[in-house]
Amino acid sequence: MSDSRPLGLFDSGIGGLTVFRAIRQRLPNERILYLGDTARVPYGTKSRETVTRYTRECARFLLHRRIKALVVACNTASALALPSLAPELPIPALGVLQPGAARACALSDSGRIGVIGTEATIRSGAYAEAIRGIRPEAEVFSVPSPLFVPLAEEGWTEGDVARLVARRYLSAFDSKSIDTLVLGCTHYPLLKGVIAEALGGGIRLVDSAEAAAEESERMLERDGLLAGKAGDVEDHFYVTDSSQRFAEVGSRFLGTSLGRLEQVDITGDV
Amino acid sequence: MSDSRPLGLFDSGIGGLTVFRAIRQRLPNERILYLGDTARVPYGTKSRETVTRYTRECARFLLHRRIKALVVACNTASALALPSLAPELPIPALGVLQPGAARACALSDSGRIGVIGTEATIRSGAYAEAIRGIRPEAEVFSVPSPLFVPLAEEGWTEGDVARLVARRYLSAFDSKSIDTLVLGCTHYPLLKGVIAEALGGGIRLVDSAEAAAEESERMLERDGLLAGKAGDVEDHFYVTDSSQRFAEVGSRFLGTSLGRLEQVDITGDV
Repeated sequence: MSDSRPLGLFDSGIGGLTVFRAIRQRLPNERILYLGDTARVPYGTKSRETVTRYTRECARFLLHRRIKALVVACNTASALALPSLAPELPIPALGVLQPGAARACALSDSGRIGVIGTEATIRSGAYAEAIRGIRPEAEVFSVPSPLFVPLAEEGWTEGDVARLVARRYLSAFDSKSIDTLVLGCTHYPLLKGVIAEALGGGIRLVDSAEAAAEESERMLERDGLLAGKAGDVEDHFYVTDSSQRFAEVGSRFLGTSLGRLEQVDITGDV
Repeated sequence: MSDSRPLGLFDSGIGGLTVFRAIRQRLPNERILYLGDTARVPYGTKSRETVTRYTRECARFLLHRRIKALVVACNTASALALPSLAPELPIPALGVLQPGAARACALSDSGRIGVIGTEATIRSGAYAEAIRGIRPEAEVFSVPSPLFVPLAEEGWTEGDVARLVARRYLSAFDSKSIDTLVLGCTHYPLLKGVIAEALGGGIRLVDSAEAAAEESERMLERDGLLAGKAGDVEDHFYVTDSSQRFAEVGSRFLGTSLGRLEQVDITGDV
Protein backbone atom coordinates (compact mmCIF):
# COMPACT_ATOMS: atom_id res chain seq x y z
CA MET A 1 0.00 0.00 0.00
CA SER A 2 1.33 3.42 -0.82
CA ASP A 3 0.04 6.96 -0.92
CA SER A 4 1.34 9.31 -3.58
CA ARG A 5 -0.22 12.49 -2.16
CA PRO A 6 2.32 15.10 -1.03
CA LEU A 7 3.49 15.76 2.52
CA GLY A 8 2.85 19.32 3.73
CA LEU A 9 5.62 21.16 5.53
CA PHE A 10 5.03 24.58 7.00
CA ASP A 11 7.30 27.18 8.58
CA SER A 12 7.07 30.86 9.46
CA GLY A 13 9.75 31.50 6.88
CA ILE A 14 12.99 30.03 5.80
CA GLY A 15 14.26 28.22 8.89
CA GLY A 16 12.09 25.18 8.21
CA LEU A 17 14.31 24.32 5.29
CA THR A 18 16.55 22.55 7.82
CA VAL A 19 13.58 20.24 8.46
CA PHE A 20 12.87 19.99 4.75
CA ARG A 21 16.42 18.82 4.15
CA ALA A 22 16.26 16.20 6.89
CA ILE A 23 12.96 14.80 5.57
CA ARG A 24 14.13 14.91 1.97
CA GLN A 25 17.16 12.77 2.88
CA ARG A 26 15.25 10.29 5.00
CA LEU A 27 12.21 9.93 2.74
CA PRO A 28 13.43 10.27 -0.86
CA ASN A 29 10.16 9.03 -2.36
CA GLU A 30 7.95 11.64 -0.74
CA ARG A 31 6.87 14.72 -2.62
CA ILE A 32 6.95 17.74 -0.28
CA LEU A 33 4.93 20.96 -0.44
CA TYR A 34 6.75 23.59 1.61
CA LEU A 35 4.98 26.78 2.70
CA GLY A 36 7.02 29.64 4.20
CA ASP A 37 4.93 32.50 5.58
CA THR A 38 7.60 35.05 4.66
CA ALA A 39 5.15 37.98 4.51
CA ARG A 40 4.58 37.69 8.26
CA VAL A 41 7.81 36.16 9.53
CA PRO A 42 9.00 36.02 12.32
CA TYR A 43 6.48 34.29 14.60
CA GLY A 44 8.82 34.12 17.60
CA THR A 45 8.13 37.66 18.80
CA LYS A 46 4.35 37.41 18.43
CA SER A 47 1.46 36.36 20.65
CA ARG A 48 -0.15 32.91 20.94
CA GLU A 49 -3.36 34.25 19.45
CA THR A 50 -1.67 35.72 16.36
CA VAL A 51 0.60 32.69 15.84
CA THR A 52 -2.41 30.38 16.06
CA ARG A 53 -4.36 32.40 13.50
CA TYR A 54 -1.41 32.39 11.08
CA THR A 55 -0.76 28.67 11.58
CA ARG A 56 -4.41 27.84 10.91
CA GLU A 57 -4.31 29.84 7.63
CA CYS A 58 -1.13 28.07 6.56
CA ALA A 59 -2.54 24.63 7.36
CA ARG A 60 -5.70 25.45 5.40
CA PHE A 61 -3.66 26.50 2.37
CA LEU A 62 -1.79 23.19 2.35
CA LEU A 63 -4.95 21.14 3.00
CA HIS A 64 -6.46 22.62 -0.14
CA ARG A 65 -3.47 21.21 -2.01
CA ARG A 66 -4.43 17.71 -0.81
CA ILE A 67 -1.57 16.90 1.52
CA LYS A 68 -1.74 13.56 3.34
CA ALA A 69 -0.05 14.76 6.53
CA LEU A 70 1.27 18.01 7.99
CA VAL A 71 4.65 18.71 9.55
CA VAL A 72 4.94 22.02 11.41
CA ALA A 73 8.63 22.86 11.07
CA CYS A 74 8.46 26.07 13.10
CA ASN A 75 9.18 25.64 16.81
CA THR A 76 7.09 28.66 17.77
CA ALA A 77 4.04 27.40 15.86
CA SER A 78 4.62 23.89 17.25
CA ALA A 79 4.70 25.27 20.78
CA LEU A 80 1.87 27.81 20.60
CA ALA A 81 -0.54 26.68 17.90
CA LEU A 82 -0.29 22.96 17.15
CA PRO A 83 -1.87 21.64 20.38
CA SER A 84 -5.14 23.46 19.67
CA LEU A 85 -4.96 23.03 15.88
CA ALA A 86 -4.12 19.31 15.50
CA PRO A 87 -7.50 18.00 16.75
CA GLU A 88 -9.29 20.13 14.11
CA LEU A 89 -7.33 18.64 11.20
CA PRO A 90 -8.62 15.76 9.03
CA ILE A 91 -5.05 14.43 8.57
CA PRO A 92 -2.24 13.47 10.95
CA ALA A 93 0.05 16.29 12.04
CA LEU A 94 3.23 16.66 14.02
CA GLY A 95 5.48 19.49 15.11
CA VAL A 96 9.19 19.69 15.84
CA LEU A 97 8.73 20.14 19.56
CA GLN A 98 7.71 16.64 20.72
CA PRO A 99 10.38 14.87 18.64
CA GLY A 100 13.02 17.31 19.94
CA ALA A 101 11.91 16.84 23.53
CA ALA A 102 11.88 13.03 23.15
CA ARG A 103 15.35 12.98 21.70
CA ALA A 104 16.69 15.20 24.49
CA CYS A 105 15.20 12.84 27.08
CA ALA A 106 16.79 9.85 25.38
CA LEU A 107 20.22 11.48 25.11
CA SER A 108 20.50 13.02 28.56
CA ASP A 109 22.19 11.00 31.32
CA SER A 110 21.70 13.42 34.17
CA GLY A 111 18.22 14.64 33.22
CA ARG A 112 19.50 18.21 33.39
CA ILE A 113 18.42 19.65 30.04
CA GLY A 114 18.78 23.13 28.57
CA VAL A 115 16.45 24.63 25.97
CA ILE A 116 17.04 27.69 23.80
CA GLY A 117 14.41 29.17 21.49
CA THR A 118 12.54 32.31 20.52
CA GLU A 119 10.93 34.56 23.08
CA ALA A 120 7.47 33.09 22.36
CA THR A 121 8.60 29.45 22.43
CA ILE A 122 10.41 29.83 25.75
CA ARG A 123 7.64 31.90 27.34
CA SER A 124 5.10 29.20 26.41
CA GLY A 125 6.93 26.66 28.57
CA ALA A 126 6.01 23.99 26.00
CA TYR A 127 9.44 22.34 25.84
CA ALA A 128 9.74 22.08 29.60
CA GLU A 129 6.27 20.56 29.71
CA ALA A 130 6.98 18.08 26.92
CA ILE A 131 10.27 17.01 28.49
CA ARG A 132 8.75 16.50 31.92
CA GLY A 133 5.89 14.60 30.29
CA ILE A 134 8.48 12.04 29.19
CA ARG A 135 10.95 12.25 32.11
CA PRO A 136 9.08 13.66 35.10
CA GLU A 137 12.27 13.94 37.16
CA ALA A 138 14.08 16.05 34.52
CA GLU A 139 15.27 19.54 35.36
CA VAL A 140 14.77 21.94 32.46
CA PHE A 141 16.51 25.29 32.09
CA SER A 142 15.16 27.56 29.35
CA VAL A 143 16.79 30.66 27.86
CA PRO A 144 15.29 32.81 25.08
CA SER A 145 17.93 33.55 22.42
CA PRO A 146 16.16 35.75 19.88
CA LEU A 147 19.24 37.27 18.21
CA PHE A 148 20.34 33.91 16.82
CA VAL A 149 17.54 34.21 14.23
CA PRO A 150 18.67 37.45 12.54
CA LEU A 151 22.30 36.32 12.85
CA ALA A 152 21.50 33.17 10.88
CA GLU A 153 19.49 35.11 8.29
CA GLU A 154 22.32 37.63 7.91
CA GLY A 155 24.72 34.72 7.37
CA TRP A 156 26.83 35.68 10.41
CA THR A 157 27.00 32.13 11.72
CA GLU A 158 30.65 32.28 12.74
CA GLY A 159 33.08 35.00 13.70
CA ASP A 160 33.34 37.48 16.56
CA VAL A 161 29.74 38.68 16.69
CA ALA A 162 28.18 35.21 16.64
CA ARG A 163 30.65 33.97 19.26
CA LEU A 164 29.97 36.90 21.55
CA VAL A 165 26.18 36.60 21.27
CA ALA A 166 26.39 32.86 21.93
CA ARG A 167 28.59 33.43 24.95
CA ARG A 168 26.19 36.05 26.30
CA TYR A 169 23.07 33.89 26.01
CA LEU A 170 24.63 30.58 26.97
CA SER A 171 26.46 31.80 30.04
CA ALA A 172 23.05 31.45 31.68
CA PHE A 173 23.76 27.68 31.70
CA ASP A 174 27.20 28.00 33.32
CA SER A 175 26.12 26.94 36.80
CA LYS A 176 23.37 24.55 35.70
CA SER A 177 25.43 21.44 34.86
CA ILE A 178 23.26 20.52 31.87
CA ASP A 179 24.45 17.63 29.70
CA THR A 180 22.03 18.22 26.79
CA LEU A 181 20.83 21.35 24.99
CA VAL A 182 17.79 21.51 22.72
CA LEU A 183 18.21 23.87 19.75
CA GLY A 184 14.56 24.91 19.92
CA CYS A 185 14.37 27.02 16.77
CA THR A 186 14.92 25.88 13.21
CA HIS A 187 17.50 28.60 12.61
CA TYR A 188 19.79 27.51 15.40
CA PRO A 189 21.44 24.45 13.81
CA LEU A 190 23.19 26.92 11.49
CA LEU A 191 24.96 28.29 14.58
CA LYS A 192 25.89 24.88 16.00
CA GLY A 193 29.59 25.65 15.84
CA VAL A 194 29.58 28.78 18.00
CA ILE A 195 26.94 27.33 20.33
CA ALA A 196 29.04 24.23 21.02
CA GLU A 197 32.13 26.39 21.52
CA ALA A 198 30.36 28.71 23.97
CA LEU A 199 29.05 25.77 26.01
CA GLY A 200 32.39 24.05 26.29
CA GLY A 201 32.82 20.32 25.70
CA GLY A 202 30.64 17.39 26.64
CA ILE A 203 27.18 18.85 26.08
CA ARG A 204 25.00 17.13 23.51
CA LEU A 205 23.10 19.36 21.07
CA VAL A 206 19.65 18.26 19.95
CA ASP A 207 18.67 19.35 16.45
CA SER A 208 14.88 19.05 16.20
CA ALA A 209 15.04 18.85 12.40
CA GLU A 210 16.63 15.41 12.48
CA ALA A 211 14.27 14.19 15.21
CA ALA A 212 11.23 15.55 13.35
CA ALA A 213 12.27 13.76 10.15
CA GLU A 214 12.48 10.45 12.01
CA GLU A 215 9.11 11.05 13.61
CA SER A 216 7.59 11.99 10.23
CA GLU A 217 8.68 8.62 8.86
CA ARG A 218 7.12 6.83 11.84
CA MET A 219 3.88 8.78 11.43
CA LEU A 220 3.56 7.99 7.72
CA GLU A 221 4.44 4.34 8.30
CA ARG A 222 1.98 3.96 11.15
CA ASP A 223 -0.89 5.41 9.09
CA GLY A 224 -0.01 3.59 5.87
CA LEU A 225 0.78 6.87 4.13
CA LEU A 226 4.31 6.25 2.82
CA ALA A 227 4.78 6.88 -0.88
CA GLY A 228 5.86 4.06 -3.15
CA LYS A 229 9.03 4.05 -5.21
CA ALA A 230 9.02 7.17 -7.34
CA GLY A 231 11.07 8.44 -10.22
CA ASP A 232 12.08 12.07 -10.00
CA VAL A 233 10.30 13.74 -7.11
CA GLU A 234 9.46 17.40 -7.68
CA ASP A 235 9.04 19.47 -4.55
CA HIS A 236 7.12 22.72 -4.53
CA PHE A 237 7.94 25.75 -2.42
CA TYR A 238 5.30 28.37 -1.67
CA VAL A 239 6.07 31.71 -0.01
CA THR A 240 3.76 34.55 0.99
CA ASP A 241 6.23 37.36 0.23
CA SER A 242 8.40 37.90 -2.83
CA SER A 243 10.31 34.75 -3.63
CA GLN A 244 13.62 36.43 -4.45
CA ARG A 245 14.91 36.78 -0.91
CA PHE A 246 13.70 33.26 -0.09
CA ALA A 247 15.63 31.87 -3.03
CA GLU A 248 18.79 33.69 -1.91
CA VAL A 249 18.70 32.92 1.82
CA GLY A 250 17.18 29.51 1.14
CA SER A 251 20.11 28.34 -0.91
CA ARG A 252 22.31 29.26 2.07
CA PHE A 253 20.18 26.98 4.25
CA LEU A 254 20.01 24.07 1.82
CA GLY A 255 23.46 24.42 0.35
CA THR A 256 21.84 24.03 -3.07
CA SER A 257 19.37 26.03 -5.13
CA LEU A 258 15.63 25.57 -4.63
CA GLY A 259 13.35 23.99 -7.18
CA ARG A 260 9.88 25.21 -8.06
CA LEU A 261 9.12 28.38 -6.10
CA GLU A 262 5.88 30.38 -6.14
CA GLN A 263 4.49 33.40 -4.29
CA VAL A 264 0.94 32.96 -3.00
CA ASP A 265 -1.67 34.92 -1.05
CA ILE A 266 -2.92 32.64 1.72
CA THR A 267 -5.20 35.11 3.49
CA GLY A 268 -7.63 34.91 0.57
CA ASP A 269 -7.45 31.09 0.49
CA VAL A 270 -10.71 30.13 2.19
CA MET B 1 -8.31 78.67 12.77
CA SER B 2 -7.57 75.34 14.37
CA ASP B 3 -8.30 71.69 13.69
CA SER B 4 -8.91 69.39 16.61
CA ARG B 5 -8.88 66.15 14.60
CA PRO B 6 -6.06 63.78 15.50
CA LEU B 7 -2.80 63.31 13.64
CA GLY B 8 -2.19 59.74 12.42
CA LEU B 9 1.21 58.18 12.95
CA PHE B 10 2.01 54.77 11.55
CA ASP B 11 4.94 52.40 11.94
CA SER B 12 5.63 48.74 11.22
CA GLY B 13 5.99 48.24 14.95
CA ILE B 14 7.57 49.92 17.86
CA GLY B 15 10.43 51.92 16.34
CA GLY B 16 8.11 54.75 15.32
CA LEU B 17 7.78 55.70 18.97
CA THR B 18 11.00 57.72 18.48
CA VAL B 19 9.01 59.80 15.98
CA PHE B 20 6.01 59.89 18.28
CA ARG B 21 8.18 61.31 21.05
CA ALA B 22 9.66 63.99 18.81
CA ILE B 23 6.22 65.10 17.58
CA ARG B 24 4.73 64.98 21.05
CA GLN B 25 7.43 67.35 22.30
CA ARG B 26 7.20 69.74 19.39
CA LEU B 27 3.41 69.80 19.05
CA PRO B 28 1.98 69.45 22.57
CA ASN B 29 -1.56 70.39 21.50
CA GLU B 30 -1.93 67.64 18.90
CA ARG B 31 -3.74 64.45 19.71
CA ILE B 32 -1.90 61.51 18.09
CA LEU B 33 -3.28 58.15 16.95
CA TYR B 34 -0.36 55.73 16.69
CA LEU B 35 -0.71 52.45 14.79
CA GLY B 36 2.02 49.80 15.11
CA ASP B 37 1.60 46.82 12.77
CA THR B 38 3.18 44.45 15.29
CA ALA B 39 1.46 41.35 13.88
CA ARG B 40 3.50 41.70 10.67
CA VAL B 41 6.63 43.52 11.80
CA PRO B 42 9.35 43.83 10.49
CA TYR B 43 8.85 45.41 7.07
CA GLY B 44 12.57 45.86 6.37
CA THR B 45 13.11 42.32 5.12
CA LYS B 46 10.02 42.26 2.90
CA SER B 47 9.25 43.15 -0.71
CA ARG B 48 7.98 46.47 -2.08
CA GLU B 49 4.69 44.86 -3.06
CA THR B 50 4.03 43.44 0.42
CA VAL B 51 5.15 46.60 2.23
CA THR B 52 2.86 48.68 -0.01
CA ARG B 53 -0.12 46.44 0.70
CA TYR B 54 0.47 46.61 4.45
CA THR B 55 1.00 50.39 4.40
CA ARG B 56 -2.22 50.90 2.48
CA GLU B 57 -4.15 48.83 5.04
CA CYS B 58 -2.64 50.81 7.91
CA ALA B 59 -3.43 54.16 6.28
CA ARG B 60 -7.02 53.04 5.69
CA PHE B 61 -7.42 52.05 9.33
CA LEU B 62 -6.28 55.49 10.49
CA LEU B 63 -8.36 57.31 7.85
CA HIS B 64 -11.46 55.63 9.25
CA ARG B 65 -10.58 57.22 12.58
CA ARG B 66 -10.76 60.66 10.95
CA ILE B 67 -7.15 61.75 11.06
CA LYS B 68 -6.32 65.12 9.49
CA ALA B 69 -2.86 64.15 8.26
CA LEU B 70 -0.66 61.05 8.12
CA VAL B 71 2.95 60.65 9.20
CA VAL B 72 4.66 57.45 8.10
CA ALA B 73 7.24 56.86 10.82
CA CYS B 74 8.71 53.71 9.26
CA ASN B 75 11.65 54.32 6.94
CA THR B 76 10.97 51.16 4.93
CA ALA B 77 7.32 52.15 4.32
CA SER B 78 8.42 55.72 3.55
CA ALA B 79 10.91 54.45 1.00
CA LEU B 80 8.88 51.70 -0.65
CA ALA B 81 5.20 52.57 -0.26
CA LEU B 82 4.60 56.26 0.36
CA PRO B 83 5.45 57.57 -3.14
CA SER B 84 2.69 55.48 -4.71
CA LEU B 85 0.29 55.81 -1.77
CA ALA B 86 0.37 59.57 -1.04
CA PRO B 87 -1.42 60.66 -4.24
CA GLU B 88 -4.33 58.32 -3.38
CA LEU B 89 -4.92 59.86 0.05
CA PRO B 90 -7.54 62.58 0.74
CA ILE B 91 -5.28 64.15 3.42
CA PRO B 92 -1.68 65.39 3.45
CA ALA B 93 0.98 62.80 4.24
CA LEU B 94 4.69 62.72 4.86
CA GLY B 95 7.30 60.11 5.60
CA VAL B 96 10.57 60.22 7.51
CA LEU B 97 12.71 59.85 4.43
CA GLN B 98 12.44 63.28 2.78
CA PRO B 99 12.94 65.19 6.06
CA GLY B 100 15.96 63.03 6.89
CA ALA B 101 17.45 63.52 3.46
CA ALA B 102 16.89 67.28 3.61
CA ARG B 103 18.51 67.56 6.99
CA ALA B 104 21.53 65.54 5.85
CA CYS B 105 21.95 67.84 2.84
CA ALA B 106 21.77 70.91 5.09
CA LEU B 107 24.28 69.53 7.60
CA SER B 108 26.90 68.12 5.26
CA ASP B 109 29.82 70.34 4.24
CA SER B 110 31.54 67.97 1.85
CA GLY B 111 28.41 66.47 0.29
CA ARG B 112 29.75 63.01 1.12
CA ILE B 113 26.83 61.41 2.95
CA GLY B 114 26.40 57.93 4.39
CA VAL B 115 23.06 56.17 4.84
CA ILE B 116 22.30 53.10 6.96
CA GLY B 117 18.93 51.35 7.00
CA THR B 118 17.12 48.04 6.58
CA GLU B 119 17.80 45.76 3.66
CA ALA B 120 14.62 46.93 1.88
CA THR B 121 15.23 50.65 2.45
CA ILE B 122 18.80 50.50 1.17
CA ARG B 123 17.94 48.27 -1.79
CA SER B 124 15.23 50.74 -2.85
CA GLY B 125 17.82 53.49 -3.33
CA ALA B 126 15.23 56.00 -2.09
CA TYR B 127 17.57 57.90 0.26
CA ALA B 128 20.25 58.30 -2.38
CA GLU B 129 17.62 59.55 -4.81
CA ALA B 130 16.11 62.00 -2.30
CA ILE B 131 19.53 63.37 -1.34
CA ARG B 132 20.62 63.85 -4.94
CA GLY B 133 17.26 65.47 -5.66
CA ILE B 134 18.28 68.19 -3.21
CA ARG B 135 22.05 68.25 -3.75
CA PRO B 136 22.76 66.81 -7.18
CA GLU B 137 26.51 66.82 -6.63
CA ALA B 138 26.29 64.81 -3.38
CA GLU B 139 28.00 61.44 -3.11
CA VAL B 140 25.89 58.93 -1.22
CA PHE B 141 27.21 55.69 0.32
CA SER B 142 24.56 53.24 1.54
CA VAL B 143 25.03 50.24 3.82
CA PRO B 144 22.24 47.90 4.99
CA SER B 145 22.51 47.27 8.74
CA PRO B 146 19.68 44.88 9.54
CA LEU B 147 20.99 43.54 12.87
CA PHE B 148 20.63 46.95 14.53
CA VAL B 149 16.85 46.36 14.64
CA PRO B 150 16.84 43.17 16.75
CA LEU B 151 19.66 44.58 18.89
CA ALA B 152 17.52 47.60 19.76
CA GLU B 153 14.46 45.44 20.43
CA GLU B 154 16.53 43.14 22.65
CA GLY B 155 17.72 46.22 24.56
CA TRP B 156 21.38 45.50 23.69
CA THR B 157 22.10 49.08 22.71
CA GLU B 158 25.50 49.24 24.37
CA GLY B 159 28.16 46.75 25.35
CA ASP B 160 30.43 44.38 23.44
CA VAL B 161 27.93 42.91 21.01
CA ALA B 162 26.46 46.25 19.91
CA ARG B 163 29.95 47.74 19.53
CA LEU B 164 31.18 44.84 17.45
CA VAL B 165 28.13 44.84 15.16
CA ALA B 166 28.45 48.62 14.70
CA ARG B 167 32.13 48.28 13.89
CA ARG B 168 31.44 45.52 11.38
CA TYR B 169 28.74 47.44 9.46
CA LEU B 170 30.29 50.88 9.67
CA SER B 171 33.79 49.92 8.64
CA ALA B 172 32.31 50.06 5.14
CA PHE B 173 32.55 53.86 5.47
CA ASP B 174 36.21 53.85 6.53
CA SER B 175 37.64 54.94 3.20
CA LYS B 176 34.67 57.06 2.14
CA SER B 177 35.39 60.30 4.04
CA ILE B 178 31.74 60.97 4.81
CA ASP B 179 30.97 63.88 7.14
CA THR B 180 27.27 63.02 7.74
CA LEU B 181 25.44 59.75 8.38
CA VAL B 182 21.67 59.29 8.08
CA LEU B 183 20.20 56.87 10.65
CA GLY B 184 17.67 55.57 8.13
CA CYS B 185 15.61 53.35 10.44
CA THR B 186 13.57 54.43 13.44
CA HIS B 187 15.32 51.89 15.68
CA TYR B 188 18.80 53.24 15.06
CA PRO B 189 18.74 56.36 17.26
CA LEU B 190 18.71 53.98 20.22
CA LEU B 191 22.16 52.84 19.11
CA LYS B 192 23.53 56.35 18.55
CA GLY B 193 26.26 55.86 21.16
CA VAL B 194 27.91 52.80 19.63
CA ILE B 195 27.38 54.11 16.09
CA ALA B 196 29.16 57.39 16.87
CA GLU B 197 31.95 55.49 18.59
CA ALA B 198 32.44 53.11 15.66
CA LEU B 199 32.58 55.99 13.17
CA GLY B 200 35.13 57.97 15.14
CA GLY B 201 34.78 61.71 15.75
CA GLY B 202 33.55 64.51 13.51
CA ILE B 203 30.70 62.77 11.70
CA ARG B 204 27.23 64.23 12.12
CA LEU B 205 24.38 61.79 12.76
CA VAL B 206 20.98 62.59 11.29
CA ASP B 207 18.02 61.32 13.29
CA SER B 208 15.01 61.31 10.98
CA ALA B 209 12.60 61.40 13.93
CA GLU B 210 13.57 64.96 14.84
CA ALA B 211 13.52 66.06 11.19
CA ALA B 212 10.13 64.43 10.61
CA ALA B 213 8.65 66.20 13.65
CA GLU B 214 9.80 69.58 12.28
CA GLU B 215 8.38 68.75 8.88
CA SER B 216 5.08 67.60 10.45
CA GLU B 217 4.73 71.00 12.08
CA ARG B 218 5.39 72.75 8.78
CA MET B 219 2.84 70.55 6.99
CA LEU B 220 0.09 71.21 9.54
CA GLU B 221 0.85 74.93 9.57
CA ARG B 222 0.85 75.19 5.79
CA ASP B 223 -2.52 73.47 5.49
CA GLY B 224 -4.15 75.27 8.45
CA LEU B 225 -4.43 72.00 10.37
CA LEU B 226 -2.72 72.85 13.67
CA ALA B 227 -4.75 72.16 16.79
CA GLY B 228 -5.67 75.00 19.11
CA LYS B 229 -4.66 75.19 22.75
CA ALA B 230 -5.81 72.02 24.42
CA GLY B 231 -6.09 70.83 27.97
CA ASP B 232 -4.91 67.30 28.57
CA VAL B 233 -4.22 65.56 25.30
CA GLU B 234 -4.92 61.83 25.30
CA ASP B 235 -3.04 59.81 22.71
CA HIS B 236 -4.19 56.43 21.51
CA PHE B 237 -1.95 53.53 20.57
CA TYR B 238 -3.23 50.74 18.32
CA VAL B 239 -1.30 47.53 17.70
CA THR B 240 -2.16 44.56 15.49
CA ASP B 241 -0.61 41.93 17.79
CA SER B 242 -0.95 41.47 21.53
CA SER B 243 -0.29 44.73 23.31
CA GLN B 244 1.78 43.30 26.16
CA ARG B 245 5.12 43.14 24.36
CA PHE B 246 4.47 46.58 22.84
CA ALA B 247 3.87 48.03 26.28
CA GLU B 248 7.11 46.49 27.57
CA VAL B 249 9.44 47.37 24.70
CA GLY B 250 7.58 50.65 24.12
CA SER B 251 8.34 51.95 27.56
CA ARG B 252 12.03 51.29 26.81
CA PHE B 253 11.70 53.47 23.70
CA LEU B 254 9.73 56.28 25.32
CA GLY B 255 11.38 56.16 28.71
CA THR B 256 7.87 56.31 30.20
CA SER B 257 4.82 54.05 30.16
CA LEU B 258 2.33 54.24 27.30
CA GLY B 259 -1.17 55.57 27.66
CA ARG B 260 -4.26 54.07 26.06
CA LEU B 261 -3.30 50.90 24.18
CA GLU B 262 -5.59 48.68 22.13
CA GLN B 263 -5.19 45.61 19.91
CA VAL B 264 -7.02 45.80 16.58
CA ASP B 265 -7.52 43.71 13.44
CA ILE B 266 -6.81 45.96 10.48
CA THR B 267 -7.14 43.40 7.71
CA GLY B 268 -10.90 43.35 8.25
CA ASP B 269 -11.11 47.15 8.35
CA VAL B 270 -12.51 47.91 4.90
